[in-house]
Amino acid sequence: MTGLFITFEGGDGSGKSTQARLLTDWLQEQGHSVLRSREPGGTEVGIEIREIVLHHRGDIAPRAEALLYAADRAHHIATKVRPALARGEIVIQDRYLDSSVAYQGAGRVLGATEVRDLSLWAAEGLLPDLTILLDLDETVARGRLDAANKRFDRLEAEKNEFHARVRAAFLELAEAEQTRFLVTDAAAPVETIAAIVRARVAALLGA
Amino acid sequence: MTGLFITFEGGDGSGKSTQARLLTDWLQEQGHSVLRSREPGGTEVGIEIREIVLHHRGDIAPRAEALLYAADRAHHIATKVRPALARGEIVIQDRYLDSSVAYQGAGRVLGATEVRDLSLWAAEGLLPDLTILLDLDETVARGRLDAANKRFDRLEAEKNEFHARVRAAFLELAEAEQTRFLVTDAAAPVETIAAIVRARVAALLGA
Repeated sequence: MTGLFITFEGGDGSGKSTQARLLTDWLQEQGHSVLRSREPGGTEVGIEIREIVLHHRGDIAPRAEALLYAADRAHHIATKVRPALARGEIVIQDRYLDSSVAYQGAGRVLGATEVRDLSLWAAEGLLPDLTILLDLDETVARGRLDAANKRFDRLEAEKNEFHARVRAAFLELAEAEQTRFLVTDAAAPVETIAAIVRARVAALLGA
Repeated sequence: MTGLFITFEGGDGSGKSTQARLLTDWLQEQGHSVLRSREPGGTEVGIEIREIVLHHRGDIAPRAEALLYAADRAHHIATKVRPALARGEIVIQDRYLDSSVAYQGAGRVLGATEVRDLSLWAAEGLLPDLTILLDLDETVARGRLDAANKRFDRLEAEKNEFHARVRAAFLELAEAEQTRFLVTDAAAPVETIAAIVRARVAALLGA
């Protein structure tokens, strides 16, 4: 028996952890054994790696940073995710390799293909059975916020441009792997999204 | 003006640091600016990474460990070695990617090609101008030691087998890149080896 590996992807504030929690609750109510996990920092080694990335004084070379995140991923997948899947459990994870590809690609420091290759090498090729992309129009979301609170300055515009690139990168990834991805409108009501997610997961479990 | 990148490779106790020091002294006497460096742990980030690899309680997944060493390498090359080379300095380093390939290959956990690819990605393709391999017959070296001190037990025999594989891997790498490598007999007198190394480096500097 092998389990099911489900990842949630999308920009900050798109509702990933809310949906991951709702799906976990629903699956547990149905008697499934679920492991909720996250990157970076899902293991003790990962927490130590996260400390370096977040709290080191001074810059870290871009490739070194990518390799540190990949090391966290390698350890997390090998010691937590794969053993859980081997026990037949369902693993629900906030962010995985699609986030690495989308954010690095949007930052334009490293190429999308090399980041993906690095992640896949780290994870010994493990791809999710299902990836739920919570798609949100960042400009609209931030625009509303800005209209209420403050002027729309240059830094905000740049931030929006970056988030727009991340969003486009996620959508491109989903387009390229349509059977793995479920794209949902993150602006829809929480319960509507949860129902769509449940339907897809139920279909996978029934298969 | 670009500098010169020289690495010393070989098993433990083959005399790498002695030869690196002698070469450094000689080059400095001739007025050259030399950076002596080492991996792992040649930078602050590297020291933190080394802490994780050496002092973490419990096992680290093999790929995670390889990625942590690669992260150390990426940061070290980008922030110390490349800037020194750009200033026209001579960088003399104990161990580099050939060690990663030889030791990982001998351990048989990861493939030699993937370890080499990972290292080269980390270092953005930087290869040494000259690599001095201090070749030593580990069985002879350890045999002498054991005859003097203690019985030759099974663990020692296994250790010798491992070191023999590392040695063979180094020699294979040298065979594949004969213009980059200088292979020296590490059993020869220290000053004899130093003279051979100086002659080769002088030729490179004259070129």
